[in-house]
Amino acid sequence: MNYETPRPGRVIDALKCLSGISIDTPLLRSERLNSICDGTVFLKCENLQRTGAFKFRGAYNCLSRLDRNAFPGGVVAYSTGNHGQAVATVARILGIKATIVMPRNAPATKIQRAKDQGANIVLYDRATESREEIAARLAAEMPVAIVPPGDHPDVIAGQGTIAAEALLSLGHQQVQVIAVPCGGGGLAAGTCLATAAFDAKAEVWIAEPIGFDDTKRSLESGLREQNLSIEGSICDALLAPTPAELTFSINRKRVSQALTVSDHQVLVAMRFAYEEFRIVVEPGGVVALASLLSTPGILKGKTAVVVLSGGNVDRALFRRAIADDDLRAAF
Amino acid sequence: MNYETPRPGRVIDALKCLSGISIDTPLLRSERLNSICDGTVFLKCENLQRTGAFKFRGAYNCLSRLDRNAFPGGVVAYSTGNHGQAVATVARILGIKATIVMPRNAPATKIQRAKDQGANIVLYDRATESREEIAARLAAEMPVAIVPPGDHPDVIAGQGTIAAEALLSLGHQQVQVIAVPCGGGGLAAGTCLATAAFDAKAEVWIAEPIGFDDTKRSLESGLREQNLSIEGSICDALLAPTPAELTFSINRKRVSQALTVSDHQVLVAMRFAYEEFRIVVEPGGVVALASLLSTPGILKGKTAVVVLSGGNVDRALFRRAIADDDLRAAF
Repeated sequence: MNYETPRPGRVIDALKCLSGISIDTPLLRSERLNSICDGTVFLKCENLQRTGAFKFRGAYNCLSRLDRNAFPGGVVAYSTGNHGQAVATVARILGIKATIVMPRNAPATKIQRAKDQGANIVLYDRATESREEIAARLAAEMPVAIVPPGDHPDVIAGQGTIAAEALLSLGHQQVQVIAVPCGGGGLAAGTCLATAAFDAKAEVWIAEPIGFDDTKRSLESGLREQNLSIEGSICDALLAPTPAELTFSINRKRVSQALTVSDHQVLVAMRFAYEEFRIVVEPGGVVALASLLSTPGILKGKTAVVVLSGGNVDRALFRRAIADDDLRAAF
Repeated sequence: MNYETPRPGRVIDALKCLSGISIDTPLLRSERLNSICDGTVFLKCENLQRTGAFKFRGAYNCLSRLDRNAFPGGVVAYSTGNHGQAVATVARILGIKATIVMPRNAPATKIQRAKDQGANIVLYDRATESREEIAARLAAEMPVAIVPPGDHPDVIAGQGTIAAEALLSLGHQQVQVIAVPCGGGGLAAGTCLATAAFDAKAEVWIAEPIGFDDTKRSLESGLREQNLSIEGSICDALLAPTPAELTFSINRKRVSQALTVSDHQVLVAMRFAYEEFRIVVEPGGVVALASLLSTPGILKGKTAVVVLSGGNVDRALFRRAIADDDLRAAF
């Protein structure tokens, strides 16, 4: 680990940095959802964020603080898609060179969108190649700054602005739970940092796909556990091999519940978001909502903010979520 | 016509009435959309409004001012769907009885949702029966207030809060165009009223489906023209037979451009909204956006607010909009 644990105040710095740049995304609610959860739920819609995912926040907060003289080659990001897209977009906005290292089997829309931002794209095979090695090889040619998807204080602080906005909007003592999707853990860590920054009593809950519950098992064992595979879930945005070091050091102190959901439950939640809120949420972005929908009554009267972290989903998969098949909800 | 033309100030009254009740819906934008239109476009997302359509605003502003003693039978609405749903929901919130008269071939989701709100539903055949006659028959049994979808000063003032919020948020001198879908004309009339209330210089543009351009033709002739049919477009929310009387008297003085779009252009715009903004917009709700997308460069440097008026679309039709077929965009 190269970085110290960021102070909570860095979330406030990130709020200032992102003011007028990122979208203060809406908080949506419905009586039907409240009734299912037996509580009051506010969906924080980061699928409506610029680039269609929360990753824009961390990328902007990080790149806007880059020492450009030290890194003439600009920035490199290795990413399952949304982070790469965010870095590509932010780099274009700020006039910084960007190279994005992406798995060859990432959704086609995500690859094309990064290209559209003028980024240099390097594709790799997720099963046989290491994205970290490729990024390091690029860095050896010309000084570049590697922007990790989660393990960087400025990235974490940037993601923390989501919870910060919700706490500011709803009143920081009014929220008992903040539930977020969890891959490498950057969004969860930022959320933990935000609750600390506001001295809020809100619990932080995370949700992961079944079979990719590395953070849940790590929280139980106290060690950074591995996933058995990094393929085999429709939640492509969450398939990190293991919790990142810095994010886990934060999450282990503050995350109080870890939930898991199946691909089927994810599809049901995507359909629910379509019908009840008229929004498009990608599989990895909907897992926290899916975990609540799959456990009726889970809130027991509490008020919760549930982060929908992204909305970049291929049309074919979205059509599957809203198909007239035997997809049945548990509620 | 039973009502006088409302003063612009009633939009400000409606803003107060709806404060904390309706959602101040987000304004979304994208560089790709700006580039296509050669201007700056803010999408006002009423598909994210309560009940999934702007109609909630007019219904709430109207029903909250109802004289309950004079109308023990509550309210009756005849509606292609979104208005009925809004009246049913608002009536439940305010504890008022509601009867909704709906065409038998309205989208199933819209009928079910009104039922879910506890409203009494009366279905009729759009081709052989008159919804006005049915509503009048109901009114003869017990005193009820008929809430028209557009032709009522409180409904119009309520719809005007959409443009009012946008003008307040963006600065009322910063907006040159406000473009809205047009069926009976209530949204357009409310928008005209809002521009007058703020003394804004913004032009009001309307968009209609090809073949259902009664308002466009009425603006040209100065008389309330009829549509040849009230069936045959996917834009079910916009199929009024003719401009309403009060709304037309307002729109004829202030609407400066009337555009038309085909079903194909509507589907292309629905797909665009899915891919670029990750939102679900119904056919009738997307016609203003569709009209801009179909005329590249139309804004010539201007700043426009484009209202997406609703998001209640059956899954089968939405799948068609995002299918991998030969749907081709003109841009």
